[in-house]
Amino acid sequence: MDKVCLVIGAGAGIGGTVGARFAAGGYHAVLGRRSDTEGLDRLVSDIRAAGGAATGRLLNAVEPGEIEALVDEVERDVGPIHALVYNIGAQIGDRSLPETSAKVFERCWRMATFGLFRAAQAVCPLMAARGSGTVLVTASTAAMRGNAGQHAHAAAMAGRRMLCQTLNAEFAPRGVHIAHIVIDGAVDAPDTLGKMLGPERFAALRSMKGADDGLLLPEHVAETYWHIAHQHRSVWTHELDLRAWTDQAWWNHATDTRI
Amino acid sequence: MDKVCLVIGAGAGIGGTVGARFAAGGYHAVLGRRSDTEGLDRLVSDIRAAGGAATGRLLNAVEPGEIEALVDEVERDVGPIHALVYNIGAQIGDRSLPETSAKVFERCWRMATFGLFRAAQAVCPLMAARGSGTVLVTASTAAMRGNAGQHAHAAAMAGRRMLCQTLNAEFAPRGVHIAHIVIDGAVDAPDTLGKMLGPERFAALRSMKGADDGLLLPEHVAETYWHIAHQHRSVWTHELDLRAWTDQAWWNHATDTRI
Amino acid sequence: MDKVCLVIGAGAGIGGTVGARFAAGGYHAVLGRRSDTEGLDRLVSDIRAAGGAATGRLLNAVEPGEIEALVDEVERDVGPIHALVYNIGAQIGDRSLPETSAKVFERCWRMATFGLFRAAQAVCPLMAARGSGTVLVTASTAAMRGNAGQHAHAAAMAGRRMLCQTLNAEFAPRGVHIAHIVIDGAVDAPDTLGKMLGPERFAALRSMKGADDGLLLPEHVAETYWHIAHQHRSVWTHELDLRAWTDQAWWNHATDTRI
Amino acid sequence: MDKVCLVIGAGAGIGGTVGARFAAGGYHAVLGRRSDTEGLDRLVSDIRAAGGAATGRLLNAVEPGEIEALVDEVERDVGPIHALVYNIGAQIGDRSLPETSAKVFERCWRMATFGLFRAAQAVCPLMAARGSGTVLVTASTAAMRGNAGQHAHAAAMAGRRMLCQTLNAEFAPRGVHIAHIVIDGAVDAPDTLGKMLGPERFAALRSMKGADDGLLLPEHVAETYWHIAHQHRSVWTHELDLRAWTDQAWWNHATDTRI
Repeated sequence: MDKVCLVIGAGAGIGGTVGARFAAGGYHAVLGRRSDTEGLDRLVSDIRAAGGAATGRLLNAVEPGEIEALVDEVERDVGPIHALVYNIGAQIGDRSLPETSAKVFERCWRMATFGLFRAAQAVCPLMAARGSGTVLVTASTAAMRGNAGQHAHAAAMAGRRMLCQTLNAEFAPRGVHIAHIVIDGAVDAPDTLGKMLGPERFAALRSMKGADDGLLLPEHVAETYWHIAHQHRSVWTHELDLRAWTDQAWWNHATDTRI
Repeated sequence: MDKVCLVIGAGAGIGGTVGARFAAGGYHAVLGRRSDTEGLDRLVSDIRAAGGAATGRLLNAVEPGEIEALVDEVERDVGPIHALVYNIGAQIGDRSLPETSAKVFERCWRMATFGLFRAAQAVCPLMAARGSGTVLVTASTAAMRGNAGQHAHAAAMAGRRMLCQTLNAEFAPRGVHIAHIVIDGAVDAPDTLGKMLGPERFAALRSMKGADDGLLLPEHVAETYWHIAHQHRSVWTHELDLRAWTDQAWWNHATDTRI
Repeated sequence: MDKVCLVIGAGAGIGGTVGARFAAGGYHAVLGRRSDTEGLDRLVSDIRAAGGAATGRLLNAVEPGEIEALVDEVERDVGPIHALVYNIGAQIGDRSLPETSAKVFERCWRMATFGLFRAAQAVCPLMAARGSGTVLVTASTAAMRGNAGQHAHAAAMAGRRMLCQTLNAEFAPRGVHIAHIVIDGAVDAPDTLGKMLGPERFAALRSMKGADDGLLLPEHVAETYWHIAHQHRSVWTHELDLRAWTDQAWWNHATDTRI
Repeated sequence: MDKVCLVIGAGAGIGGTVGARFAAGGYHAVLGRRSDTEGLDRLVSDIRAAGGAATGRLLNAVEPGEIEALVDEVERDVGPIHALVYNIGAQIGDRSLPETSAKVFERCWRMATFGLFRAAQAVCPLMAARGSGTVLVTASTAAMRGNAGQHAHAAAMAGRRMLCQTLNAEFAPRGVHIAHIVIDGAVDAPDTLGKMLGPERFAALRSMKGADDGLLLPEHVAETYWHIAHQHRSVWTHELDLRAWTDQAWWNHATDTRI
């Protein structure tokens, strides 16, 4: 059976591209996403056209049992999951506290925190029993600090970060590598940022930042995911950040007068 | 009408003691807790015996609408909430990932993260409209780092920490002081630690650490809550830690050989 | 003999004002600063006029032996040092790497890091032998993150922060309270910020931020120093931040589009 | 002329091995270290035997002008420095405050902080003028937190960390990639850890931890240095950690009872 890389949250940005990178490296990429069958089929057929193995699956990650069922099915029908990429974000744009409904707050948590918990519960014990495996978790700036308008998002992503630290403390000594990858900037991703901004503002951002290297390019992000997943176990990275060279780090301020 | 200090999570440890301190300083302390009418009555009557004003209310913070109804009622019947103390923890002891049920994971989040979100949504806009107020949030070591067995607890407390940073970014410039107080050690609190450990282990811990100053003593914790709540607004503290002098900080290891 | 509060770096901002606060609380304030005898005399006579005890001493903290000699002299002639306030900054304004001379880089370290090391070496063992004492270290945003132009300043203040953590690990269990107080904003201090900006820009900043509460007011900063120094040893704070209500925390960005 | 990787601190552990990795990738490795001509010659001849280009140079990094002269010489005689690896540690073992002499404290700073400042001052403007280059800085746990006995070491490594953040803020937008690589565990390095522990304790540690993967193996560390240095500039990592799978992260405690 194939060695599987399961991507939960496989849009045309980081998720799908990481899946393609792992497929190019010999994994069977199983791509799960919530909607857009056509987009999913395109990702799968692109991987196959390049000689790789891939399977697509629509998946509602917040629905009880769906992640768990997918993991079971993959392990039974495709092969052992050697890499889990948890790439579901919870970005809803900035909203003031009164504009953030309890429903939205809970939904962000279900997608960003609880979904990873459930995926880890399904996958980590299997990896631990096999003595190897990697869980790659896409994170964002909001995991590192709260900012105005980020009530739901920051709370969810920070919960996810500490969950990763807990998983790492429990599973690293059993051979499971947990990595928390902080994407500290805008990703050149039509399915997420593009949809959030709309086509015009997205095009303007790409043009302003520089389309060649001013946004994080998914194919290069994927190289680092691949590297982290294949570090020798004497030298595992738990956390790292990624940003475009022209971006300031989250702890810096362009116009800060503070000293 | 009285200036109110509303404590959500008012046991015989930090919560009730902070309420008593604010009552001694002229606030009407409204003490909310989930159970133990007798214990609650004792806190209230102790405050009154000392010449302070206090009201007790049983409250199930995870029940939709209960926090919101309490805030409405207090604002209407007792007085404007000038200090909110959010003191509900989510400590369930160490549990491995397989031992942590989805239900427990969600419950911790409902108590530690979502409850604060709902309380803040009810209280912060009122405080902002008045141009002043303080939200004091009790935090724990788990807000700062995940550790084995802390899946539910660390995820919930870290979400709470970033929620506090977000609240601070949005409400500080509107006159609402948000403080995240990291209790980095064992508290001499029969209602929480005492119940979690059981009477024998709790007594042994108190004896081992030193009952006079080896555990965090709630009456002294309360002095710092009081101080933070009354800082001039030119010098607000958002985050601080508290631990007993004999305890190591969370970032230190007694037996660490790392360099 | 008197209980002494020794302030190293006692200008008309935080240092002198903290000294005055401790004098008001019954300490003998010993104020050390590098220059401006007239300004120093004014601080001392103001304290005395208010009924407190104070002594002024010019001091070149980077000169080998000067801090050590002052500590010896104070302990012998004035009284045991119960509080040490280390308040020498190393602010030199923003300078690009080529504009930062090796001499300046070294001088910042001598003032901000090495000076505290030497002061701690002189004072901490005495405090440990007495089983009590407090070291209050004024810190700045630069201790928490490097920013462009802060090569010398950030390196020096960060070294100081980790020195404080090390001192805390070694001396807290021996009864010496070490506190690292992060001043995350502009202080209304004519001797430091005023001199760095010049009178016109300083006046403009005060006017823009709001002179009543838009800059950190030293007399209110001093209240928190006092509180921290007198926490019961069951509840010691090692690190806290202070900023004006209208300022963003260092981890926030006014114009950040990052998510 | 060749593309150069200059290693400052090139012992038989991380430094020399990273140099060999870059030589295998087509760089001319220039290896600088303080002493042991024989060991240095062995590193150089091993690289040459494998078909790579290498030059060795004895270098006293704390001596004024030596780093600067080496950079000048390499740029003139060997080729443009595309990668600078700053690998000088400042590990002196645990020493209590009274046991830490001012001389030792200063020496640690000269090696770990000031040396990097001087190297960056010599190299970064050249890289910025060429619009590309990478500075890889080896860091340690002590850069992240102070611990008892680490007065000199933690202060020096933390200063270095904030210097890296400052360099990053200033030079990343000019095409120079600055990376701070936290080695959070014991490295299988006879020249550093081996000498510090002595042969017997070092052998015992290797045996206890597991010689295959229980200590950080330099050849695998080097793969991550290589990866980081060759990330596309749309996705640069500034900070990451590395540790053996069986090691706890610095923020975890094996025996912690804290919650």
